[in-house]
Amino acid sequence: MSNPILLAPGPVQLHPEVQKILAQPMIHHRTPEFDQILARTLKGLKFLFQTTQPVFMQTSTGSGAMESALVNLLSPGDEVLAIVSGKFGERWADIAEVYGAKVTRLNVEWGSAVKLEDVRTHLKQNPQTKIVLSQACETSTATVHDIRELGRIVSETDALFVVDGITAVGAFPIPMDDYKIDALIAGSQKGVMLPTGLSFISFSEKAWKHVLTAKTPRYYFDVRKEFKANQNGETLFSSPVPLVKSLDFILSMLQNMGLNQHFKEIKRRADFTRTTGQKMGLSLYSQAPSDSVTAFRLPEGMKGAELRTHLEQKYFVTVMGGQDQAKGKILRIGHMGYILDHHMIETMERLALGLNDFGFKIDASKVKAWSEVWLKENPL
Amino acid sequence: MSNPILLAPGPVQLHPEVQKILAQPMIHHRTPEFDQILARTLKGLKFLFQTTQPVFMQTSTGSGAMESALVNLLSPGDEVLAIVSGKFGERWADIAEVYGAKVTRLNVEWGSAVKLEDVRTHLKQNPQTKIVLSQACETSTATVHDIRELGRIVSETDALFVVDGITAVGAFPIPMDDYKIDALIAGSQKGVMLPTGLSFISFSEKAWKHVLTAKTPRYYFDVRKEFKANQNGETLFSSPVPLVKSLDFILSMLQNMGLNQHFKEIKRRADFTRTTGQKMGLSLYSQAPSDSVTAFRLPEGMKGAELRTHLEQKYFVTVMGGQDQAKGKILRIGHMGYILDHHMIETMERLALGLNDFGFKIDASKVKAWSEVWLKENPL
Repeated sequence: MSNPILLAPGPVQLHPEVQKILAQPMIHHRTPEFDQILARTLKGLKFLFQTTQPVFMQTSTGSGAMESALVNLLSPGDEVLAIVSGKFGERWADIAEVYGAKVTRLNVEWGSAVKLEDVRTHLKQNPQTKIVLSQACETSTATVHDIRELGRIVSETDALFVVDGITAVGAFPIPMDDYKIDALIAGSQKGVMLPTGLSFISFSEKAWKHVLTAKTPRYYFDVRKEFKANQNGETLFSSPVPLVKSLDFILSMLQNMGLNQHFKEIKRRADFTRTTGQKMGLSLYSQAPSDSVTAFRLPEGMKGAELRTHLEQKYFVTVMGGQDQAKGKILRIGHMGYILDHHMIETMERLALGLNDFGFKIDASKVKAWSEVWLKENPL
Repeated sequence: MSNPILLAPGPVQLHPEVQKILAQPMIHHRTPEFDQILARTLKGLKFLFQTTQPVFMQTSTGSGAMESALVNLLSPGDEVLAIVSGKFGERWADIAEVYGAKVTRLNVEWGSAVKLEDVRTHLKQNPQTKIVLSQACETSTATVHDIRELGRIVSETDALFVVDGITAVGAFPIPMDDYKIDALIAGSQKGVMLPTGLSFISFSEKAWKHVLTAKTPRYYFDVRKEFKANQNGETLFSSPVPLVKSLDFILSMLQNMGLNQHFKEIKRRADFTRTTGQKMGLSLYSQAPSDSVTAFRLPEGMKGAELRTHLEQKYFVTVMGGQDQAKGKILRIGHMGYILDHHMIETMERLALGLNDFGFKIDASKVKAWSEVWLKENPL
């Protein structure tokens, strides 16, 4: 029970090969060796995003990529519809407001997906809407929105569909071109299985017209400049070399195994976790559960924040609690990263022990047995 | 001759202990373990900057920190004096212009330090100047400005002295408070000896008043928000955990050995390199050479860009060429990072061999002998 396990919705456990690559001697980002790595990863990112458009790497967290999407598209005064169904929807709306947009918040009950009809109606009544902001997966509630349908709805208007794919890209299908997404962002510490530090962004042809004319000042996140640098086989600024080399490995791995197989493995982890947790007597928090992260509603009256710390300190398992209005009420378990079956079994077993310690009656040894049976019956 | 050597002005060779830390299993940035690391590193950064003010970590390259300094201080229309003595001075001016400042470029001949009198005169004639921008070391020319005197001059006015310390902090003395610097930035892949990916920024009390009132919109680099998060023992966004853990190690090391000893070691490398290079018949490009990086002027007519690639491909040594107007004319050798004496000897020896291959007459075996004697006569 003493091996540490990290099953958070990012950062995630690293592939052993990535750990090795991170430890390699430094190379410079202006060398023939790095040039080749860069060319391969920029190509691999198009595969990951399932787009024909260029995908850019930025040295930032996912929030930096959210800012990048907005400063590259917005002009002050633009009307923006923000789907707000959790903490990261709030963040979309906040950033857009900081940069002078007139933001309408489409508030969705936490744990629910947005009603397509509400978006359709808003766009019909507000045809001047410039941007629709959404999460693919709202990490704070472990909930997915119907990005495919939303993309179809927005594509029939002049608005741009800008999607935070931070807990989605590399975790479940979100093909940018097919889903008619106009700007898609991702972060390194989620589906891409790396440490925090790189973010990714791509714009559709429809969006590029706005990138070229948007009036928000920008420098660090100016994708027009990065595009030129990439055309010359370079990055605009210094590159976080160990992360890019690790990304090269991950993208090769994903291209070899195929995205579908990768998504299948993650979905199996989600199915296992949901099934086992519900068998244990926990209920799902989300009405539209994501495959990248599962949120369980904790039994009424249980001190969730303390439970999380207890799991961390007594059982060496890092899962996440809730944020803002869900604080103390839910527990979130991530399904991305380098996760073997024994990590999943041990996590559920330790969760059972922790719940026991907090007065919730559950036989932890049964949890282990159930888990082993389920995983055997549902092989990779 | 086949062991790769990286003596660039960043990124730099990593300490073996840092390589080990980078390879450790991931931990989450919202855990008691990380909280302790964060508290220690935020304290250690104040030691590194030699300031009583808070120093912030950002997930970005150094250019992101340049943007951060400006968006946190500027309001559109502000008058800015930019000391432009190379590529990074140009970058300061460019970013300030993007964010709506009225920028006066004080152009200085490449390789020279700014004349103090010119800054004094400009500030006297333009008392409404809001910000003076300078590099501590202009990396593109390996030249230092007299930051201590510039700080004194600017401090006697209402202007803020904003210093790019990217190739300076952790490489030579630049005590922020003593030198009356109002905003100081640094990057992880230089004097701090880590991979690219973290940047650091701190503001004086005089500057904070502007931070609180500046009208430039900002979100990702908003230090007001980061300050609040740090006060609560957290970072605002996801943290690049392996880098922060490595930073913790480096800062502990520097605090144990003392900054002066660290600077002495770097200065010895600079002295060695300048002496040996000049003995080889090369001349210094800079009139005010930096201890963090040395630039040699290449013999007239030599194809510098090709020489650099040749050194890389035949001798496995990465040094940097020149940029923009110095392109092909100079060679830059870095003195920061994990550098042992044999790295320095081998670099100069391989440089001699490379120069030989390009028709410059020099006995490489002599270079080795000279180097060994100098290093013995000038021990650590």
